[in-house]
Amino acid sequence: MILTKAYAAYDQKSPLAPYQFERREPRPHDVVLDILYCGVCHSDLHQVRDEWGGSMYPMVPGHEIVGKVIRVGSEVKNFKPGDRAAVGVMIDSCRHCANCQSHLEQYCEEGMTGTYNAYERDGVTIAQGGYSTTIVTDERYVFRIAGSLDLAGAAPLLCAGITTFSPLRFAGVKPGMKVAIVGLGGLGHMGLKFAHAFGAEVSLVSSSASKEADARRLGAHNFILSTDERQMKKYRSYFDMVLNTVSANHDYAPYLKLVGMNGRMMVVGLPSKAPHVEPFDLLTNRRSITGSMIGGTAETQEMLDFCAAKNIVADVEVIPMHKINEAYERMLRNDVRYRFVIDLASLKNQ
Amino acid sequence: MILTKAYAAYDQKSPLAPYQFERREPRPHDVVLDILYCGVCHSDLHQVRDEWGGSMYPMVPGHEIVGKVIRVGSEVKNFKPGDRAAVGVMIDSCRHCANCQSHLEQYCEEGMTGTYNAYERDGVTIAQGGYSTTIVTDERYVFRIAGSLDLAGAAPLLCAGITTFSPLRFAGVKPGMKVAIVGLGGLGHMGLKFAHAFGAEVSLVSSSASKEADARRLGAHNFILSTDERQMKKYRSYFDMVLNTVSANHDYAPYLKLVGMNGRMMVVGLPSKAPHVEPFDLLTNRRSITGSMIGGTAETQEMLDFCAAKNIVADVEVIPMHKINEAYERMLRNDVRYRFVIDLASLKNQ
Repeated sequence: MILTKAYAAYDQKSPLAPYQFERREPRPHDVVLDILYCGVCHSDLHQVRDEWGGSMYPMVPGHEIVGKVIRVGSEVKNFKPGDRAAVGVMIDSCRHCANCQSHLEQYCEEGMTGTYNAYERDGVTIAQGGYSTTIVTDERYVFRIAGSLDLAGAAPLLCAGITTFSPLRFAGVKPGMKVAIVGLGGLGHMGLKFAHAFGAEVSLVSSSASKEADARRLGAHNFILSTDERQMKKYRSYFDMVLNTVSANHDYAPYLKLVGMNGRMMVVGLPSKAPHVEPFDLLTNRRSITGSMIGGTAETQEMLDFCAAKNIVADVEVIPMHKINEAYERMLRNDVRYRFVIDLASLKNQ
Repeated sequence: MILTKAYAAYDQKSPLAPYQFERREPRPHDVVLDILYCGVCHSDLHQVRDEWGGSMYPMVPGHEIVGKVIRVGSEVKNFKPGDRAAVGVMIDSCRHCANCQSHLEQYCEEGMTGTYNAYERDGVTIAQGGYSTTIVTDERYVFRIAGSLDLAGAAPLLCAGITTFSPLRFAGVKPGMKVAIVGLGGLGHMGLKFAHAFGAEVSLVSSSASKEADARRLGAHNFILSTDERQMKKYRSYFDMVLNTVSANHDYAPYLKLVGMNGRMMVVGLPSKAPHVEPFDLLTNRRSITGSMIGGTAETQEMLDFCAAKNIVADVEVIPMHKINEAYERMLRNDVRYRFVIDLASLKNQ
């Protein structure tokens, strides 16, 4: 067994604290990663605090994991010790349903296995995430990171990155299209970078005017202040696609009205309060609202290769492991541009 | 001017009553129809009773109009006296916006001109509908009815027909696809016939068990009772497309859950209370909700030609004009299978 240092939530109220546990010895198809960086996703905090229900403790969060391969199982062909590699939001799925066979494992008909706070498919072992020094994962759910990419900046690609890349691809975003990104947080800033890289005319929609300069720096051609009725009206029916990255409770209506003929608003957030939808706004312009959940294994690898080719990474603030509780508080205040990433060296050297 | 007999609403409360008015002399591109039948759409009642606001009286309702051409303007090439022809939900649009140029006039960027309870594009004349003996309409908004089709049964094709045909076409319904039609009313029964004619496996979803026999007679392969939790669960994620024809206030969630991977629920009704949408239901299976509004001129003609080729008409109950108020009351009780159609001979002979 592989002794692993970590930080864990011991219950829904206490701060995260040091924890030790054992990872399994690699099976024939397993890859063992020495974790170098792990991004901090808002969903980590939701689960730590049991805001979605059903949390299991002690819980080691983290599903934006990058590191170096240190061992591989006997059957592994695509990874070798020394390779840079990554693990994202899922570590398994049924592998035989139609969706798994189409590499849409995130939509596995039997349910995907989350990277933490989930039972592995043996129904007994509780999966533990990337706020830790090591992870052992079946190679199907491990990704290559091409040589040049900054590893700390690459970590958030595994959730914030693929969650925005996938809907933009699904909507066929390309040069000549007009795309709006709603919200400039961890997800929004990646959506902005991708939409820009795909050659679209990109607008950033935000309720805070202070985001304008950053939005433009990150590639936005236009900035739309959502609280300004006049601006929102000016862009009514303007966009081919609106990528709504907001997870806080909000009304879909003002953003749906921005969508033009046959266009769609894609939503990736999970507001706890079900938003209203005005049927009239759907009938106008034959608009669609479409949901999108992270991305499958093939598309995640495609995204990482695209990022390597275009040198796209997240804007991150690297923190040592012991600052995680402070980082959570700052995240709640939106005081991060745009993703905290834990440097696991801080844990190994403790 | 052409003296026209009609029934009109004089205010939002009184029963409809006889009315006389003048239609314009045909302009070079106008077609004059002797109206034979006019369908009774639920939206007639909404507007008669000013339930959507802004109603103008006296109002002659009716936008499911079929008849015989009796005169044509000097420039009209496609119609001649004696032809069977039809007028639907709109009689004009701006004709120059991108949507009009794509024959999606129902989405005209300046707003289409409704067949009644609307100002014509001169901004002065109030358009009057098909509960009348004659109508004068620009040929662009007049359709051919091929020889064999029963005219009374054809009338509802102009609204109930095209409103369901268009979303089924938009969703690419074809053999091998699984389609659910929600609601078995004027719209639902047409949706059922079309989905069946397109070769899909069709299921009818209704809250009333008494509709099963009729649903099967009209082409449903399955009947799903929406109040039966077990049946609804059995068909969860089963359908490629769900056509939701319900206009009454209702929750989208149970029907959205029926949609499978990359599928969509298309909505054509306008419930007055905005339905909730659970973001989780959208993210699951990457589902979409898409609105659809009647159909454009090219697609309406395509639909009528398809109906002529396949001998598809609505199931109708033909009534004389003076029974309209009684018909409204029965429509409110869902006591019609599935569309009232007014025989205008009853008005001409009065």
